[in-house]
Amino acid sequence: MTSQRPDRVDGFVAGQRVEVAGKPDGSLAGLRFAAKDIFDVAGHVTGGGNPDWARTHSPAKKTAPAVQALLDAGAFLVGKTITDELTRGILGINVFDGTPENPKAPDRVPGGSSSGSASVVASGAVDFALGSDTGGSVRIPASFCGICGIRPSHGRVPIASVIEQAPSFDTVGWFAREVDILTRVGQVLLSGTPATAPFTRLIVAEDAFAVADEEVRQALAPAVDALRALAPATAEEVIAPDGLGTWRAAMMTAQQWEAHRSFADWIDRVNPRFSYDVAQRFLNAAATSDTDLAAAKPVREAHRQRMAELLRPGTVVVLPTAPSPAPRYGLRQSEMQDVRRRIIELTCIAGGTGAAQVSLPAAEVDGLPVGFSLIAAAGADEMLLALAQDMFEILV
Amino acid sequence: MTSQRPDRVDGFVAGQRVEVAGKPDGSLAGLRFAAKDIFDVAGHVTGGGNPDWARTHSPAKKTAPAVQALLDAGAFLVGKTITDELTRGILGINVFDGTPENPKAPDRVPGGSSSGSASVVASGAVDFALGSDTGGSVRIPASFCGICGIRPSHGRVPIASVIEQAPSFDTVGWFAREVDILTRVGQVLLSGTPATAPFTRLIVAEDAFAVADEEVRQALAPAVDALRALAPATAEEVIAPDGLGTWRAAMMTAQQWEAHRSFADWIDRVNPRFSYDVAQRFLNAAATSDTDLAAAKPVREAHRQRMAELLRPGTVVVLPTAPSPAPRYGLRQSEMQDVRRRIIELTCIAGGTGAAQVSLPAAEVDGLPVGFSLIAAAGADEMLLALAQDMFEILV
Repeated sequence: MTSQRPDRVDGFVAGQRVEVAGKPDGSLAGLRFAAKDIFDVAGHVTGGGNPDWARTHSPAKKTAPAVQALLDAGAFLVGKTITDELTRGILGINVFDGTPENPKAPDRVPGGSSSGSASVVASGAVDFALGSDTGGSVRIPASFCGICGIRPSHGRVPIASVIEQAPSFDTVGWFAREVDILTRVGQVLLSGTPATAPFTRLIVAEDAFAVADEEVRQALAPAVDALRALAPATAEEVIAPDGLGTWRAAMMTAQQWEAHRSFADWIDRVNPRFSYDVAQRFLNAAATSDTDLAAAKPVREAHRQRMAELLRPGTVVVLPTAPSPAPRYGLRQSEMQDVRRRIIELTCIAGGTGAAQVSLPAAEVDGLPVGFSLIAAAGADEMLLALAQDMFEILV
Repeated sequence: MTSQRPDRVDGFVAGQRVEVAGKPDGSLAGLRFAAKDIFDVAGHVTGGGNPDWARTHSPAKKTAPAVQALLDAGAFLVGKTITDELTRGILGINVFDGTPENPKAPDRVPGGSSSGSASVVASGAVDFALGSDTGGSVRIPASFCGICGIRPSHGRVPIASVIEQAPSFDTVGWFAREVDILTRVGQVLLSGTPATAPFTRLIVAEDAFAVADEEVRQALAPAVDALRALAPATAEEVIAPDGLGTWRAAMMTAQQWEAHRSFADWIDRVNPRFSYDVAQRFLNAAATSDTDLAAAKPVREAHRQRMAELLRPGTVVVLPTAPSPAPRYGLRQSEMQDVRRRIIELTCIAGGTGAAQVSLPAAEVDGLPVGFSLIAAAGADEMLLALAQDMFEILV
């Protein structure tokens, strides 16, 4: 009987030794990185943050293309990092592998599900780390841990040989302490044709700022002002005339439906161990019907059209990454529900519409990091990273 | 990370050493017994079959009165036995402590939730064992493991210092290989005034037999005939004119509502690890509203009245304990749902109405044990045990 639960660990999956040297030279030579334990590395079991996933899967035969591209560019893989169970969490709590420490806020959760990757970047153990972002899993830990993170446009980074959650949302994202490294990794990972329009127009997302705590809004105000000063044109806009709660609900319906498809057969066969909250998420997913999905479809299409209308070439939306700093460690389930709901009202904007988003460490509230985010249309990742670099130089 | 799950274990909770000698003489002197790991034994943590229950509870300060009474009567406590997580199971599967072996049917589950107690009695490791029965948790493992088991009338055995699931259903029950020992334990544990009417009338429960597999009905036919021969009068009756499915649903609603009350605060605070199926049960419990409970109340009252009408003094109802032999180990969740539903259509008859029930190993189907049950009105436990003794002598 396992009577202990690991707690506040260093972000790396314990009991694994996954080290792969990169090629001797390349654009990332000299950089050390880690990969969330949902990326296959040949010869190692991909654990997915759940003991029964690990138990029921064989060592990976090949290395995920995203990891391989980084190795080929000269980066050194030093380990696998903890994830919320099967990427099903936004706060970074894992009762099996342990909850990674938040180096910038020791009594706070790190955010998830790419919790370990954010933790080891924030602690300085690596130069950058791979995560994934389906509904906020890179952006939220970046904000909570005070580092930079990108959720690229959906589809621009190969996601093969990565545990799938909800394929129409899943993206490979990454973290670094500096935008320069975020960009260098992007130059290796981003495929396809980038959008070429330069930054010409800033939209301040009124309704997204209204979701955040007053303290967060105040803390981010200087960064927003600095960004306005960089912008050839600016506007205040309500992103979601029908309410961000509607956006959140429509995204969640589709994400849950897809997550059920991804895991239902395995769950039925294995009867896995889960934490209660993760089991609850899977049960809600199982209760999402085809009818629910069909009802959400036109709503999501309207949201995509709204974003296309807002995100004309050269446009960037600014918003808080999260509504608050990282919540305290050890909250009750019932207290966390509202925290999660508010977070997803912000992350659904890019997450539900395939747009690109970068989160930067912009300020502190009571000594706790709060992130600030830039969103651009799918394909404009390079423009977004260039603007993030300009902003990062102003912020630090 | 715990990557292994224990499997087919011997029924005792591993890593515990709970041994308490009884008084030097008494009616149970010389008998060895075990207690399900939901009974407090002073100085030991009551584990409840869940690692986070064990982790969040201190060693018990006092020994449960039922255990103490047995020790005072001279029995020797040799260990704690595995239970389905927090008694929330009927098949005897526990992915944390391990699933106890079924000594009579090695490729089959033992039944639960008093799985370990049934297993160690069936293997001969102890003379008798304490379990609990809320919705079938003694009767089903008795049937599956080919031993004798009693769910006494609700309230006749003290249940203090035992993990509570659904108080208006919870009973302390026990197992033995022979009715003689079942009776001797009953003489120690049963409190209150027994009903005095002797056995005068047998009711063969037509609808309950109809729930069982044809092979089970055929296998039990000789035992039913033998029982008819002992009965001064016999009748065939439909127990549930409104259908046993209705009885099951009404009982489940109340049981789930009560189970939610028993565990909700702890779950909210601890976010425990559960197997998926147990988490699902708790989530269904949480979804059972006060309105559901109120709607089930008059239905349950009608069922109690129906049983009062059937179980006049001296009356015994005979039925199959379970609809089939023990299911194979390793079924999918989706395959087990129907198995559980059918089981509870039989166990709800006594479980939902507070009646007493004894299960006896009556026959085999393809070499697998199948049990046969006698139900009498609350208070008639002694009459039931006396009849069980007569039947047991015929059966063996």
